[in-house]
Amino acid sequence: MTAVDNAVKFARDRRETALAELKELLAIPSISTLPEHKPDMRRAAEWLAAELKRVGMTRAEIMPTAGHPVVYAEWLGAPGKQTVLVYGHYDVQPVDPLDEWVSDPFAGQIRGDNIFARGASDMKGQDVAFIKAAEALMQNGGLPVNIKVLIEGEEEIGSPSLGEFIAAHADLLKCDFSLNCDGGILRPDLPSIAYGLRGLAYFEVWVRGPEHDLHSGMFGGTLHNPAQALCELIAGMHDADGRVTLPGFYDKVRRLAPDERAALARRPHDDEEWRINAASPPALYGEKGFTTVERVGVRPTLEVNGLYSGFIGEGSKTVLPAKAMAKVSMRLVPDQDPNEVGQQLREHLRRHAPPTVTWEVRDLTSGPGVIVERDSPHVKAAVAALKSVFGVDPVFIREGGSVPIVGMIQSQLKAESVLMGFGLPDDNLHAPNEKLHLPNFYKGIEAYIHFLHNLA
Amino acid sequence: MTAVDNAVKFARDRRETALAELKELLAIPSISTLPEHKPDMRRAAEWLAAELKRVGMTRAEIMPTAGHPVVYAEWLGAPGKQTVLVYGHYDVQPVDPLDEWVSDPFAGQIRGDNIFARGASDMKGQDVAFIKAAEALMQNGGLPVNIKVLIEGEEEIGSPSLGEFIAAHADLLKCDFSLNCDGGILRPDLPSIAYGLRGLAYFEVWVRGPEHDLHSGMFGGTLHNPAQALCELIAGMHDADGRVTLPGFYDKVRRLAPDERAALARRPHDDEEWRINAASPPALYGEKGFTTVERVGVRPTLEVNGLYSGFIGEGSKTVLPAKAMAKVSMRLVPDQDPNEVGQQLREHLRRHAPPTVTWEVRDLTSGPGVIVERDSPHVKAAVAALKSVFGVDPVFIREGGSVPIVGMIQSQLKAESVLMGFGLPDDNLHAPNEKLHLPNFYKGIEAYIHFLHNLA
Repeated sequence: MTAVDNAVKFARDRRETALAELKELLAIPSISTLPEHKPDMRRAAEWLAAELKRVGMTRAEIMPTAGHPVVYAEWLGAPGKQTVLVYGHYDVQPVDPLDEWVSDPFAGQIRGDNIFARGASDMKGQDVAFIKAAEALMQNGGLPVNIKVLIEGEEEIGSPSLGEFIAAHADLLKCDFSLNCDGGILRPDLPSIAYGLRGLAYFEVWVRGPEHDLHSGMFGGTLHNPAQALCELIAGMHDADGRVTLPGFYDKVRRLAPDERAALARRPHDDEEWRINAASPPALYGEKGFTTVERVGVRPTLEVNGLYSGFIGEGSKTVLPAKAMAKVSMRLVPDQDPNEVGQQLREHLRRHAPPTVTWEVRDLTSGPGVIVERDSPHVKAAVAALKSVFGVDPVFIREGGSVPIVGMIQSQLKAESVLMGFGLPDDNLHAPNEKLHLPNFYKGIEAYIHFLHNLA
Repeated sequence: MTAVDNAVKFARDRRETALAELKELLAIPSISTLPEHKPDMRRAAEWLAAELKRVGMTRAEIMPTAGHPVVYAEWLGAPGKQTVLVYGHYDVQPVDPLDEWVSDPFAGQIRGDNIFARGASDMKGQDVAFIKAAEALMQNGGLPVNIKVLIEGEEEIGSPSLGEFIAAHADLLKCDFSLNCDGGILRPDLPSIAYGLRGLAYFEVWVRGPEHDLHSGMFGGTLHNPAQALCELIAGMHDADGRVTLPGFYDKVRRLAPDERAALARRPHDDEEWRINAASPPALYGEKGFTTVERVGVRPTLEVNGLYSGFIGEGSKTVLPAKAMAKVSMRLVPDQDPNEVGQQLREHLRRHAPPTVTWEVRDLTSGPGVIVERDSPHVKAAVAALKSVFGVDPVFIREGGSVPIVGMIQSQLKAESVLMGFGLPDDNLHAPNEKLHLPNFYKGIEAYIHFLHNLA
């Protein structure tokens, strides 16, 4: 048997251990957006650093940032070989609404082929899968390339500290390219590689009227209800064709070339299957003139992520609210600039907000969209690895999600990324009952083994 | 001195005591809509029953309903004289947002001429003022008419149990007319009597898309965001002229007769003063073709009382929400039927909700609008009482608020109401920093004394 075969066999023999370790990490509620989970963030980072050390990294430590710390590890025992910067994150999304979870979000309950836990697919499963792959190679002849591992704790809040961290440690993080493990594939039997990622621009829009809440009977009908005005402004952000109306929003969006459109059309897709994976809304919806695959992959979108105004408890408080808030975010495609989009949002409000209310836009997180080269040596190594494990060629796709880190690494470290993760479209990311398909977890370990091997 | 002069002097000499008693009642957080305050509801009822007994009512007790109990008291020692059913309520609105209160909402802090507390103006101030008026007369020759006092605990949640209570106790509550103390006057120096009250129809509108929250990057742009769809539906409920678009909404609204319009125009009003009393929104707003006084008094309105969807905490959760909710209520004018308005809301949604989402309307509270006779003997007694105390004739107004009890008493007990309370437009009802103007509290006691005296 070759070294890679031995490493794969080693990993297969130790699947129970890998699963037990994943459950340990999943049990730590490392929710980056909630201050009360700060100690859990630390615990998750410590767990990863200890595990990276244990499997043979020569350096593994927790490094501070202005926010949650970064886990950094390295093994540089292959002089003359490539250096891969492996990216992951250990933070997870909040769990609300908690009452919609079938099992405790941090219990890692296994039902059928899936393990259910917040962060299972996004992305502790991939974190552990990569570490197990590294261990298997270490124990069977050693790593064929140099490895630097960077696991951040702020991906789910938009990686606010990572840019500064990379800038401060550019030498430490120097690499030939980056393996980004935060992603997924199309189906359990169909691997894929994302070559396009949408960017993100996330805002809060506040509309204010009176200085405090009023009695809706005493004053209703004589001033512009801020909740109504907010609804009017939000409603005006899409036209009847599902297009975003912010001025200039599509100006920099690349026209979809006929060959790219044809390539996207070859991606296996069924609208009804998509609708079911999307938690069964009554019907699909989207920008006129584009298919579902195009709408999610190559077109920018604007979503309302949250709405709040007035009285939202049980019963009927007859309040005329002083203010109303919407969380609004745009998924951006390459060449759209998040700052420009923020200006477009403000311009939309300048043009359409009535003089009867005031408004304010708060910038939250943002990052540009990215398109990755498809014929680099490391992408080819990924293609071969996926084919070895799944038995079929992977499909190239453009993802709807955003991984701002890919853009950061491109601009700050001058390194391309290859995106290889093993989540599935129905994994309920950011939603109740997030899960990881366990066969994918095990295949992921093997794919990372093959990938590293192919790089040598 | 006459009996009434003696009673007024008695009340003036005991203002400190009246204020101390008001503070006691204000200190009890009798918030009817919040289950955790059920014991406080009981305490407030007990306080009132004890006080009514103390001042000389021959019967004063707490009577159960399906919800919060009713305080009932009576003094029937004037055979052959009229019987007045005095209406009040002891429940108050919630206090959120708490951080906007300058002082504790239940501390009853006095600043300048005002006492600040939840329920001070709506309407514990009036409850106590009437009791102090009754006491003053009792101690100075006795009450000139028979009195039945009904103080409910569910006004702020739409009086859900009161109709049944009145039906079950129609003999007990039999009266010649009702004095409703839940109201206000125009200015500290300008008394007024409301002869029209708007009705209320209060609903929750739910819009649902996917069965659970989704990742906005993975699915955004391919299904109709329920928060967006809700905004579109709410936005469509008013046209560009500020008119409510629900089908048939204005069909039963009485045309404003020229003489009524002229009478309303004589009411002292200044739009800029109104804007400042309305907590200074940037500008006023309302249905085209009507003045502010008409908009609030004689035209129906539709207000959004609350909005909720998705993630509303700090930061940027990239969720595509499964559902969105709006609390929507209409203030109705006489001849509009709350049930018909509910059907109009549903018809609006049937016509305009897209097939990409589902919707549901939940009925909360409702009551019809009311117009009171202006030339009855008891209204004349009120006019004379107000003139005695304020030195000027009261103005007749139509109120924007709703007092469903007036309609209930009209239909179930066949008794008209006279509306006499002493709140002010800037009392911050249902809002932070609710207050009561103390000179009005003391004038209120005297006005109730004169009113009861004038009935004899």
